[in-house]
Amino acid sequence: MKIGIIGLGRMGGNIARRLMRAGHEVVAYDRDDKAVTALTADGAVAASGIEDMAGKLDSPRIFWSMLPAGEITEQTVETIAALCAPGDIVIDGGNSFYKDDIRRAKVLGEQGLHYVDVGTSGGVWGLERGYCMMIGGSDDAVRLLDPIFDALAPGRGDVVPTKGRDTGDDRAERGYIHAGPAGAGHFVKMVHNGIEYGLMQAYAEGFDILKGKASDKLPEDERFDLNLPDIAEVWRRGSVISSWLLDLTAIGLASDHELKQFSGHVADSGEGQWTIDAAMEEKVPANVLTAALFARYRSRVDTTFGDKLLSAMRFGFGGHVEMPQ
Amino acid sequence: MKIGIIGLGRMGGNIARRLMRAGHEVVAYDRDDKAVTALTADGAVAASGIEDMAGKLDSPRIFWSMLPAGEITEQTVETIAALCAPGDIVIDGGNSFYKDDIRRAKVLGEQGLHYVDVGTSGGVWGLERGYCMMIGGSDDAVRLLDPIFDALAPGRGDVVPTKGRDTGDDRAERGYIHAGPAGAGHFVKMVHNGIEYGLMQAYAEGFDILKGKASDKLPEDERFDLNLPDIAEVWRRGSVISSWLLDLTAIGLASDHELKQFSGHVADSGEGQWTIDAAMEEKVPANVLTAALFARYRSRVDTTFGDKLLSAMRFGFGGHVEMPQ
Amino acid sequence: MKIGIIGLGRMGGNIARRLMRAGHEVVAYDRDDKAVTALTADGAVAASGIEDMAGKLDSPRIFWSMLPAGEITEQTVETIAALCAPGDIVIDGGNSFYKDDIRRAKVLGEQGLHYVDVGTSGGVWGLERGYCMMIGGSDDAVRLLDPIFDALAPGRGDVVPTKGRDTGDDRAERGYIHAGPAGAGHFVKMVHNGIEYGLMQAYAEGFDILKGKASDKLPEDERFDLNLPDIAEVWRRGSVISSWLLDLTAIGLASDHELKQFSGHVADSGEGQWTIDAAMEEKVPANVLTAALFARYRSRVDTTFGDKLLSAMRFGFGGHVEMPQ
Amino acid sequence: MKIGIIGLGRMGGNIARRLMRAGHEVVAYDRDDKAVTALTADGAVAASGIEDMAGKLDSPRIFWSMLPAGEITEQTVETIAALCAPGDIVIDGGNSFYKDDIRRAKVLGEQGLHYVDVGTSGGVWGLERGYCMMIGGSDDAVRLLDPIFDALAPGRGDVVPTKGRDTGDDRAERGYIHAGPAGAGHFVKMVHNGIEYGLMQAYAEGFDILKGKASDKLPEDERFDLNLPDIAEVWRRGSVISSWLLDLTAIGLASDHELKQFSGHVADSGEGQWTIDAAMEEKVPANVLTAALFARYRSRVDTTFGDKLLSAMRFGFGGHVEMPQ
Repeated sequence: MKIGIIGLGRMGGNIARRLMRAGHEVVAYDRDDKAVTALTADGAVAASGIEDMAGKLDSPRIFWSMLPAGEITEQTVETIAALCAPGDIVIDGGNSFYKDDIRRAKVLGEQGLHYVDVGTSGGVWGLERGYCMMIGGSDDAVRLLDPIFDALAPGRGDVVPTKGRDTGDDRAERGYIHAGPAGAGHFVKMVHNGIEYGLMQAYAEGFDILKGKASDKLPEDERFDLNLPDIAEVWRRGSVISSWLLDLTAIGLASDHELKQFSGHVADSGEGQWTIDAAMEEKVPANVLTAALFARYRSRVDTTFGDKLLSAMRFGFGGHVEMPQ
Repeated sequence: MKIGIIGLGRMGGNIARRLMRAGHEVVAYDRDDKAVTALTADGAVAASGIEDMAGKLDSPRIFWSMLPAGEITEQTVETIAALCAPGDIVIDGGNSFYKDDIRRAKVLGEQGLHYVDVGTSGGVWGLERGYCMMIGGSDDAVRLLDPIFDALAPGRGDVVPTKGRDTGDDRAERGYIHAGPAGAGHFVKMVHNGIEYGLMQAYAEGFDILKGKASDKLPEDERFDLNLPDIAEVWRRGSVISSWLLDLTAIGLASDHELKQFSGHVADSGEGQWTIDAAMEEKVPANVLTAALFARYRSRVDTTFGDKLLSAMRFGFGGHVEMPQ
Repeated sequence: MKIGIIGLGRMGGNIARRLMRAGHEVVAYDRDDKAVTALTADGAVAASGIEDMAGKLDSPRIFWSMLPAGEITEQTVETIAALCAPGDIVIDGGNSFYKDDIRRAKVLGEQGLHYVDVGTSGGVWGLERGYCMMIGGSDDAVRLLDPIFDALAPGRGDVVPTKGRDTGDDRAERGYIHAGPAGAGHFVKMVHNGIEYGLMQAYAEGFDILKGKASDKLPEDERFDLNLPDIAEVWRRGSVISSWLLDLTAIGLASDHELKQFSGHVADSGEGQWTIDAAMEEKVPANVLTAALFARYRSRVDTTFGDKLLSAMRFGFGGHVEMPQ
Repeated sequence: MKIGIIGLGRMGGNIARRLMRAGHEVVAYDRDDKAVTALTADGAVAASGIEDMAGKLDSPRIFWSMLPAGEITEQTVETIAALCAPGDIVIDGGNSFYKDDIRRAKVLGEQGLHYVDVGTSGGVWGLERGYCMMIGGSDDAVRLLDPIFDALAPGRGDVVPTKGRDTGDDRAERGYIHAGPAGAGHFVKMVHNGIEYGLMQAYAEGFDILKGKASDKLPEDERFDLNLPDIAEVWRRGSVISSWLLDLTAIGLASDHELKQFSGHVADSGEGQWTIDAAMEEKVPANVLTAALFARYRSRVDTTFGDKLLSAMRFGFGGHVEMPQ
């Protein structure tokens, strides 16, 4: 198939490459000329802008926007939509908020256009391994795009089949799902990232407790100076908590036992926060996912005003100020 | 009554004074001579040590130990017990762990001694206001000591009577309770402090959110530069969240709007931790009390090893290391 | 002053009465005729609708909407605005979301109208005690309305003055504050309610731990069958955790020691959730306030799907299903 | 080597079998004769009791106790110790509390005996896959037992080597570690289980949010009826949150989409609680691990007394009782 890709960063560029390797044709645009040039060297057709791209695609035209969530994606979708004819498809493969997808799909639908959102996991490894994709949109559009998704997905690989699965639809086993109408793809990806935060924090707290066991504030015969790289490594073998994040932990600890290269200030992207918003809208208690998010907020400040307020209260009842009767 | 008081710090000294003002006789000992001298000036009989104190008390002798929880209280109780005769009473008015009380009461009981634990709240204000007391011990001992507790307690004061209370026992309304057998007093005081942590953290987080509303990271028309001293003040009047801790908050903010004098490193004493231990033994979920305790732990370190581990994982899947297949 | 009040439920009706007691004139409307009739009996002028009300007010006209947050308040504000002339004032005294206030104030401002939001605390007790008010709006409008706020507020009462307060503005001490521009009043009220949830949950967990201490799953000599009504009562006297919520706890426990009349399904209003939203927008960790909100969500369901998923995983590694190699 | 195994349940029996397959000799005892008979059929030498076992082992004798933590393990260790001669080794392969290990190692050490604790992960799959082992004890004892551990461990298998590991000790890569002195093995296993709870709860909350997205309380155009089995399946491929627990989740959902066979009452063993105890002793904030534990406590009760107390307070300020002035 022929597809236009807007945004040729690490994700967009490699998605384009993986598609071309599978025999698809890519028309490529990025506001950075160098990114376009690099991709044309790999076989893409260059576009000088979205309008130019529109002219180089066949009907129904397929646009894949791979840009940061927010204003730039919003404008790009609007620009594309203004150039589209009924039946054309606009894909947002970034990390947009799913309510934006719902809104956009409605607006574009009134023009006869299809809007498809794709939550894409896999990072820079995706070029070789393939991308895990969670897709939202109309049945028609998603079916039409199937060769694209099939080419991008990891495929079955050597992952052990899940016992008891019995379904006519094997797309999940090949690494992509049609999650539901527009927005559903990014919603599932959003929760995926919320879970990711929770898993990471569980490991983080566990290793914190292991490390703290060497503290000289503990009774001498209850201290252990544990080898964290070895512990991460041994848990990768036959233990209940083995995972890809643990593999990464083992790699991180192997080369830097004390993790001295890291400041401990941890960023968060929108998905963690949106996941908690969704939990609150549904009235679902999500203590672990929230605590994981808040640990990141806390990691980025030296002290909070709230902590100082605790001190002020303690000062108050500790005897140094006059007390109300 | 005549009572021996060991430990004449801020709490012990004022307890002695409040007792003497009510007409009780105090024999006083502290390893710091000056503290003893100061108290004899206020009418106490000085003791040069616990043995000397034992000789100056009448049978049944009443000892009140007002020392920090832990080794020194343990030794003092043992020393007293060794000098006691059946019927004598040993009171621990400090913040001992209630399981220590249970153990000590059993050991002393085998000697025919009474062990009474008193959880005491009120701080330095107690001298004037009286002390809120939660008492554990045998009925006989607690009944015998009633004149002591009655003198120390705040009394009814101008606290509005609780509608619907209908009980033969009005001690709670005068500010002390016989909570149960030995250990029950300190157990109730322990939970009191656990709740205290939770309340304080609720205010702390709320004021943190109020303060953060001025952040220039928020959209300009959604920022408020709020007057925190005024907010604390107004909530003291007719609002659901009025409390003594809020009064203290108002005082703290009135004189130091930014709380610049505080580092934000917040201490915790044993009771918060013991409360969580108790919750876990009972299988009671206590997310708020635990989060309050952990916020204090977190306040005392710049960064955690766990935070660095999060960064290491993010570094791992962000594309800079080789990924396991 | 003359003021039109729309919505004569428990809050609106009593606000009208308190204003009339202070000598203000009230034009009253409610879609329930009986509520209007009841209020005219207390001295109000009846209005048959908002348009009728507009005709009965003097310029600049003052409207106070006291309706549930959401659609009905939105429509009412729009209806009033359509009838207003420049200089008129629209007050929303309900529990609106503060971002709705910001938006409305902008729209009304373009018409030359003033929009004022008042977060009102005090419930049905407000008629006698007065209302604690947090006010957002322009300086001009809030200054003009001062006689209204002054009449509604509790006044200084016998609340002990806060040591160290030194401010030309004594409104906070009389029970109301001008928190900032439109939205600031409801924002402060929102955080007030978020704190309220946290405080309540801290007490709830503490009493849960006290009650659980009687469990026969604990070792026999570590069990205490504690008197919870007495404990609530004694903490009201001289303890650090005394508060109005504790007073209510004491009342509740006094008449129903086991709280058998309550199902334990606890509702939440929007403010708790909005407070967490605000915390996330500001990147402020708020573990206690969030845990308090989530405890309410959890209280309303028998079991969660997540709990079942835990069981499914345990079943999985407990040996009953084939494991992936 | 020759080894005596006490406790031939699912874990102990299979450990014995895996050792015999590797050529080791096993003397087996269980208070259930049938378990002994079954194992002798597989090649073990039967022992009629611990004393009999002691007589059938060679010096230094090696005993492996594989019994539930607590009283029965305590008694068994004491019984073995009473029969031992200097140089003999007592292994506790169960889930004992690590402080019990520290104590026992000291007592046995005074007799010249070695005490070794082995935290063993792998469940019933261990027979085929091998056991992940975390070992505490003296260097001498652990070195002497190496052929035993080597036989039980999974070995390198096809797990991808961790980039950057550079260590003379390759035991972690083969699936076992000498974590430190006695107690260290069970301590590491304890934290392993604490992390396990956190990971499980992260998935549980995420799937709860996915499932709740179909709720008819949400606006109609924001609802998604998501296919959870497909989502679990697709996340197994190339996503950041792939793990063995996710594999189990996929299996569980594949055969029972609604998880109707599960009540949602989730048990917890001691390790989760002990992990939080350790965190508190070290003053490490562990919000996620604690929230995961508390979610299990909460899952096992219909309502809490604390929830009822919230209702009582709400009833109190909602207007139905007289308020303290």
